[in-house]
Amino acid sequence: MTPLHDPAKRGFASDNYAGVLPEVLEAVAEANLGHQGAYGADVYTAALGERIVELFGAGAQAFPVFNGTGANVVALSAVSDRWSAVVCADSGHIHVDEGGAPEKVAGLKLFVVPTAGGKLTPEAITAAVPDRAGDVHWAQPRVLSVAQSTELGTVYTPDELRALAEYAHERDWLLHIDGSRLANAAASLGVPLRAITTDIGADIVSVGGTKSGLLGAELVLVLNAERAGGVEYVRKLSMQLASKQRFLAAQFLALFEDDRYLRVAGHANAMARLLAELVGAIDGVELTQPVQSNAVFAELPHAASEALMEQVPFYFWDEIRGEVRWMCAWDTTEDDVRSFAELVRAQLA
Amino acid sequence: MTPLHDPAKRGFASDNYAGVLPEVLEAVAEANLGHQGAYGADVYTAALGERIVELFGAGAQAFPVFNGTGANVVALSAVSDRWSAVVCADSGHIHVDEGGAPEKVAGLKLFVVPTAGGKLTPEAITAAVPDRAGDVHWAQPRVLSVAQSTELGTVYTPDELRALAEYAHERDWLLHIDGSRLANAAASLGVPLRAITTDIGADIVSVGGTKSGLLGAELVLVLNAERAGGVEYVRKLSMQLASKQRFLAAQFLALFEDDRYLRVAGHANAMARLLAELVGAIDGVELTQPVQSNAVFAELPHAASEALMEQVPFYFWDEIRGEVRWMCAWDTTEDDVRSFAELVRAQLA
Amino acid sequence: MTPLHDPAKRGFASDNYAGVLPEVLEAVAEANLGHQGAYGADVYTAALGERIVELFGAGAQAFPVFNGTGANVVALSAVSDRWSAVVCADSGHIHVDEGGAPEKVAGLKLFVVPTAGGKLTPEAITAAVPDRAGDVHWAQPRVLSVAQSTELGTVYTPDELRALAEYAHERDWLLHIDGSRLANAAASLGVPLRAITTDIGADIVSVGGTKSGLLGAELVLVLNAERAGGVEYVRKLSMQLASKQRFLAAQFLALFEDDRYLRVAGHANAMARLLAELVGAIDGVELTQPVQSNAVFAELPHAASEALMEQVPFYFWDEIRGEVRWMCAWDTTEDDVRSFAELVRAQLA
Amino acid sequence: MTPLHDPAKRGFASDNYAGVLPEVLEAVAEANLGHQGAYGADVYTAALGERIVELFGAGAQAFPVFNGTGANVVALSAVSDRWSAVVCADSGHIHVDEGGAPEKVAGLKLFVVPTAGGKLTPEAITAAVPDRAGDVHWAQPRVLSVAQSTELGTVYTPDELRALAEYAHERDWLLHIDGSRLANAAASLGVPLRAITTDIGADIVSVGGTKSGLLGAELVLVLNAERAGGVEYVRKLSMQLASKQRFLAAQFLALFEDDRYLRVAGHANAMARLLAELVGAIDGVELTQPVQSNAVFAELPHAASEALMEQVPFYFWDEIRGEVRWMCAWDTTEDDVRSFAELVRAQLA
Repeated sequence: MTPLHDPAKRGFASDNYAGVLPEVLEAVAEANLGHQGAYGADVYTAALGERIVELFGAGAQAFPVFNGTGANVVALSAVSDRWSAVVCADSGHIHVDEGGAPEKVAGLKLFVVPTAGGKLTPEAITAAVPDRAGDVHWAQPRVLSVAQSTELGTVYTPDELRALAEYAHERDWLLHIDGSRLANAAASLGVPLRAITTDIGADIVSVGGTKSGLLGAELVLVLNAERAGGVEYVRKLSMQLASKQRFLAAQFLALFEDDRYLRVAGHANAMARLLAELVGAIDGVELTQPVQSNAVFAELPHAASEALMEQVPFYFWDEIRGEVRWMCAWDTTEDDVRSFAELVRAQLA
Repeated sequence: MTPLHDPAKRGFASDNYAGVLPEVLEAVAEANLGHQGAYGADVYTAALGERIVELFGAGAQAFPVFNGTGANVVALSAVSDRWSAVVCADSGHIHVDEGGAPEKVAGLKLFVVPTAGGKLTPEAITAAVPDRAGDVHWAQPRVLSVAQSTELGTVYTPDELRALAEYAHERDWLLHIDGSRLANAAASLGVPLRAITTDIGADIVSVGGTKSGLLGAELVLVLNAERAGGVEYVRKLSMQLASKQRFLAAQFLALFEDDRYLRVAGHANAMARLLAELVGAIDGVELTQPVQSNAVFAELPHAASEALMEQVPFYFWDEIRGEVRWMCAWDTTEDDVRSFAELVRAQLA
Repeated sequence: MTPLHDPAKRGFASDNYAGVLPEVLEAVAEANLGHQGAYGADVYTAALGERIVELFGAGAQAFPVFNGTGANVVALSAVSDRWSAVVCADSGHIHVDEGGAPEKVAGLKLFVVPTAGGKLTPEAITAAVPDRAGDVHWAQPRVLSVAQSTELGTVYTPDELRALAEYAHERDWLLHIDGSRLANAAASLGVPLRAITTDIGADIVSVGGTKSGLLGAELVLVLNAERAGGVEYVRKLSMQLASKQRFLAAQFLALFEDDRYLRVAGHANAMARLLAELVGAIDGVELTQPVQSNAVFAELPHAASEALMEQVPFYFWDEIRGEVRWMCAWDTTEDDVRSFAELVRAQLA
Repeated sequence: MTPLHDPAKRGFASDNYAGVLPEVLEAVAEANLGHQGAYGADVYTAALGERIVELFGAGAQAFPVFNGTGANVVALSAVSDRWSAVVCADSGHIHVDEGGAPEKVAGLKLFVVPTAGGKLTPEAITAAVPDRAGDVHWAQPRVLSVAQSTELGTVYTPDELRALAEYAHERDWLLHIDGSRLANAAASLGVPLRAITTDIGADIVSVGGTKSGLLGAELVLVLNAERAGGVEYVRKLSMQLASKQRFLAAQFLALFEDDRYLRVAGHANAMARLLAELVGAIDGVELTQPVQSNAVFAELPHAASEALMEQVPFYFWDEIRGEVRWMCAWDTTEDDVRSFAELVRAQLA
């Protein structure tokens, strides 16, 4: 077989549109051949377990799953009771982009907090979620779920996360981080992964891999094992246990080799900053969010966006407002960015 | 990285212990690089759609998912109402090996029919499942789910399947085939895939890939689109929609290239037959199921089994009875089989 | 046994604090003795069916259930697909007071619309719920659920309801009315029940009984039978099917005798208007919602509220703002209202 | 209103066909008038709590619910994890007569054990439910649910129950008793309620009321509060929390007054014994189960059954075998029984 598509064609539609890091494909090939125990009874999963402890500290445990929705639902339901609710931002992926999976698969009720720029604050939560602890008529909040980086490309500082963890723990809630772009946040902040997870008091984390150059693998990272009972069972019944788990583990081992995870995310971030700089200087383009990770949000005339989309794929974020989202990925090149910025400039001229 | 395990080591524990067909890894690599639409908006998924029609007939549609539990739950819930039940064999994977996912994720009640050799018959169903159509106290059977090949390695003939489809349709039930080893059944019968799916009147099928040499991918194959509403939505909310779906589709394209799917399954079947022939001739070994696909079931002294397991991995099927299961895979060699049979002979001597 | 409590003691805490209309208890006693078919196969259920057609028009069907949460969940899930979402007001009982039952029992995702006074409008819905029909990442709105009267005591006019029904139907959504206080709304508007249900295009309605003087019974009223499949099954699996259903039906027959339902609701409304008039004239009391049904919302000094609550039971609605809710019931007397208003006046003097 | 039906007409179809004990209706009327706190904050619920401790011992707690399905689902889900399964008899109401509510509402998987006469034994459970503790592919049994009396009218002795409780607790399972006819069992054994609940080591019990002459009320009785977390929340989200709970509590207070509960059940049992004695002596009638509570099971010619059913309502239990079930209720008279036996005799003559 030869590729059915043009391997040189890239755009700014999504970091999910990018393929797989070459080192990840190599790792998969190396893990191939011979027999290995299924469902996680393999040496790659064992090695990943050790690597997780190095990265996130003693007691950290990782459960590979297939995708981000799976990671979030397994993580949230593992720390919830039947009567629990989850507090999240209005832009939260778990609320707006998972087809209702948290409610439909795990029976989780979401309490949604209006935010600016996708970032929760203690004040915003208090204003939106009344204190009805112990009231049976009210699904009881048990988990505060924050996205790092957020759906809007913004990034919480460690102090902001720490304040949210404290806020949660004071109420006997747990802190979940939806880290489908965790590396982009860490790279943006210039801190190691544990600085925005273990060290700020997170209890459970969805660690992204797919958007960072894996074929398709995410982790449910348990940092507070006492409160996350039965994760193995929940993963299985949530249909997120891979039989050939060695290949999920091998992907993450490659991603976690030296500082690759942060490096590729840092590259995508740098491309987004460059793009923001270039297009931000163009008349008719207005950046709508601070560019803190690998996303650039901007408003430009609707017709211009449509004309550009015909040449380079990307999406409207809010078609009514004319806001678009440009995502950079591990494989975005400086040339891609400069060429695209030129296209934008020409279109708006 | 170098492999963490010995790539020459194989056993008879499970077809899930085997790795990935080289052609499948190549196809993944070829599909890599460049950007492709996420969530199925890619040329590989489109090509797979065409191939599915060639293989299964006009109107057939395939929805790639991550694993077998996912395929079964998506398929069953796509054709069920909230009040529906599923009828399956007592040995059915959906009943005994999916951690309760059908009940817990999709609210499906299972009515379980005792079988010999894992194969359902109209008579066995009638005896086990009372006719209470229209009775609100009784979860209403809506789907008859049969495994082909069965968990016990047996294979339904096309006529047997047709009789079950007719039985189901007479009752306004649908026929689901759990085909995690569909190719093994087709190869065993010497018929094309559609002879045991489309042609016998199946409505929806879980088409296995992982056990046939994929990294990890299965298909929900819809043959009766009128009765399978909202499969795309159900797949998404069931957390089985891959963002980089091109890689799932590419795996299946490689598997479906020429007759590879049937060929590798036929090889595994042949290895099982050889193993059965060799060990069946050994005093102290009694085959307990007809060998119709890639599984050999046998009883031998418990201590002998335990001694053998220390050398070559395999599992007890029923430890109390001393029954073991030996699975052959796409990568099982004749040498593997002969060497193992020698080990068994020596152990029982 | 003698009553364990003082049967003369009443307050303004809730219409659920009131007991049962004498005529309802009589009807229960008359339906007693002798055997009647269980689970709805009784003459009282049959008679209720006929009465429903008189009240709501040909084709209307009613399914008695135990409580309001049950009525809402059965109604909503009967008209929803697995992938559906429900759009409701931020004050909606289904969102804030049912312990997450819609999500947890029926997997329904709620999209919540900010409102003033608890009333939805097409504009508010459009602003809050993006149009993502056909997008698998978005739980698909299928039902618009409005409360009549609302949790804030306000009442939709027939025209307002008609506009919402049209809005819903244009999008292929259905209109559900949470009518736990449907009679209060009808009485307030001076229209028959069908003017705010059948005639405005509602598809399915929760008809309240408990808050109107029943022991405990509500109805799931199906007006669009084509779109509400399997209600009997959904009711049963939702644990809302009474074995001795004759007693639920008999309660409603008594409530629906002549115009009793509207009359008792109208009395409660009148008591609320009187209360509003009296306390609204007191310095230090500010009414916060228009009084259109049997609820009075007001702000007064926190300490005054607490002192009053010690004498006559009622609740804070928003303790932070100092807003209270005073509910009138079928058994509230003019004397109750005048005495309480005097207490309020004295407290604030 | 006058009764719509003939209050003198009774049959043997179901104890659910009978109406309400006069003392229960009186208790409801006495609890009426005046205001009482909703959702259990009333003096009747408080008094019931005290009565429960007298009947079942210190620490016992009762949660009134609407019906038997509700009691069972709330009880089972309150003691289950997300990954739990319930072990029950093949004739168990939770398996065959609740429309799949345990699976559909609470995600509980049932493992069903074949029984003779509806009674589970440790041996039967061991034979049917493999020991796969800790295996994520296997929904983990957590609750053993036994019906007392069983669906087939048989009754466990305290020793038999104690053996089952020990069996369960050895495996870290809990023992649930589906006691929709608990009083019939206790009366049959001539022991107090606690002898077959608290004293034999039950953890949680569904205590029936409806079949013993209530309007419609059951209890979730928690005996092992440490293992039954969040029952209040589970009850609410399961739509089983009554707003006017005083009326449910008052019904039970009347039923639990002196020994009324056992007395009325004992009467129904005696009527069943008399019926069995009379019809058992008729040629052509064969009793098929020991008559240990208020049910008589018998085989007689199909045509005879049909002819009898036209005169006196009752049901086939197994129409294929020609087995019928005759239920006696609190209101069955000796005259009813003797007249019916005469009819049977005449029919078979």
